[in-house]
Amino acid sequence: MSAATVSTNLDVMSVRDGRIGHRQDMSITLYDLAGADPELRFSPYCWRTKFALAHKGLPVETIPWRFTDKSAIAFSGQDRVPVIRDDGRAVADSWTIAEYLEDQYPSPTLFGGPGGRAHARFINAWADSILMPAIARLIIRDLLDIVAPQDRDYFRQSREARFGMTLEQTQMRREERLPAFRDLLVPVRLVLRNQAWLGGPAPSYADFILAGTLMWPRCSSRFELLEVGDPVGAWQERLLDLYGGLGRSAKRAA
Amino acid sequence: MSAATVSTNLDVMSVRDGRIGHRQDMSITLYDLAGADPELRFSPYCWRTKFALAHKGLPVETIPWRFTDKSAIAFSGQDRVPVIRDDGRAVADSWTIAEYLEDQYPSPTLFGGPGGRAHARFINAWADSILMPAIARLIIRDLLDIVAPQDRDYFRQSREARFGMTLEQTQMRREERLPAFRDLLVPVRLVLRNQAWLGGPAPSYADFILAGTLMWPRCSSRFELLEVGDPVGAWQERLLDLYGGLGRSAKRAA
Repeated sequence: MSAATVSTNLDVMSVRDGRIGHRQDMSITLYDLAGADPELRFSPYCWRTKFALAHKGLPVETIPWRFTDKSAIAFSGQDRVPVIRDDGRAVADSWTIAEYLEDQYPSPTLFGGPGGRAHARFINAWADSILMPAIARLIIRDLLDIVAPQDRDYFRQSREARFGMTLEQTQMRREERLPAFRDLLVPVRLVLRNQAWLGGPAPSYADFILAGTLMWPRCSSRFELLEVGDPVGAWQERLLDLYGGLGRSAKRAA
Repeated sequence: MSAATVSTNLDVMSVRDGRIGHRQDMSITLYDLAGADPELRFSPYCWRTKFALAHKGLPVETIPWRFTDKSAIAFSGQDRVPVIRDDGRAVADSWTIAEYLEDQYPSPTLFGGPGGRAHARFINAWADSILMPAIARLIIRDLLDIVAPQDRDYFRQSREARFGMTLEQTQMRREERLPAFRDLLVPVRLVLRNQAWLGGPAPSYADFILAGTLMWPRCSSRFELLEVGDPVGAWQERLLDLYGGLGRSAKRAA
């Protein structure tokens, strides 16, 4: 049983009590990328959504999904996860889901107001366009060892087309490239000098964007991206403990 | 007469009318980095402050300041600009000034709420740690041609110590490095696909951070950083027109 499922059971009552008549007595369903091991959940985008749901105290039931299960989420009108189903509504894309949750369940807030939402878009775009490709070049071959057997050909072909080289070449000499990767996190370190979270005194969706992004290498690889003593690591440790240890208890690749 | 001074005269009445008893009948004073030509104002951090003041509709009188005028701002307890004096209070550092202005003169907002402020800190840190050094490597030698004669030795020595090479070497083969610089702006382009400003439907301090940063090369160099057709360029054009063309009318290096 995953941590997400456990928190579902704990949270159902409070949400039902708070929203009688507003939603059905049913938790939100999340299609969540899984590996060969169905408990290994490693999508950085699904993790952003899981932290956002946990922050809102919304119960969630996760359905393990594989890259080649396109038909299972065809109802969402597209073919990538995360996809949530909430009381009959389907919402896809982690950013769109975050906005949906904020509009539908305003408290506690994910964004801290309209400016927070607008500026979080930049942090989301930065994570997607700068961090994600850089992390991919450090762990992409490791992912092949955890994806479901039926996903392996798809995974290799689609990623090799994206990077224009084999998975093995993409990840090659990663130790030498670690310092450049760590330099990408300088803006985060500067922020953490002045506030405990990217969201300020409390975590916001900005924290979940970065945390979700870092759950990807954490769950799928044993290659350590952060240096011991990095303030980003200390921030990550604090985040892993939130929501009953949702992040910390997540299964990791052996 | 600079655009900043013109807007002062226009805005004094409205601010005085709105804040009787709250502040003196005096505009805010800004110590603003200037070149040999006192009308050439090229500090990226002072520009962030000037856009923020204009956004708030606050009158400002700018005092041209040079790198070696340390004693002129000693009252602020440090030796860098921007420094503002507002009704006897001295505030230094562009971020600190933005927070001061937001707290002191809440409307119109710079941040759009507490989340907006927290997340703008990330954008500020990104601009300072990623964009600024990258722009420096494209224009730092050009700056030597515009700084005041008394600043030239200081400027060369301090910047050459920072980069560990001569100004000429730092800027060398800049054309080849332009594509890598432009790639740094990908997150901005992604945001602008979905909203008109980094601040959302209206500009926020996040826009002024980036705009101020880009006023630095705009005012001090004729080297074009952005490609024709870049959405960041279209955003910049719109920003230059705000507040009576505050940015557009700023003097540029010949």
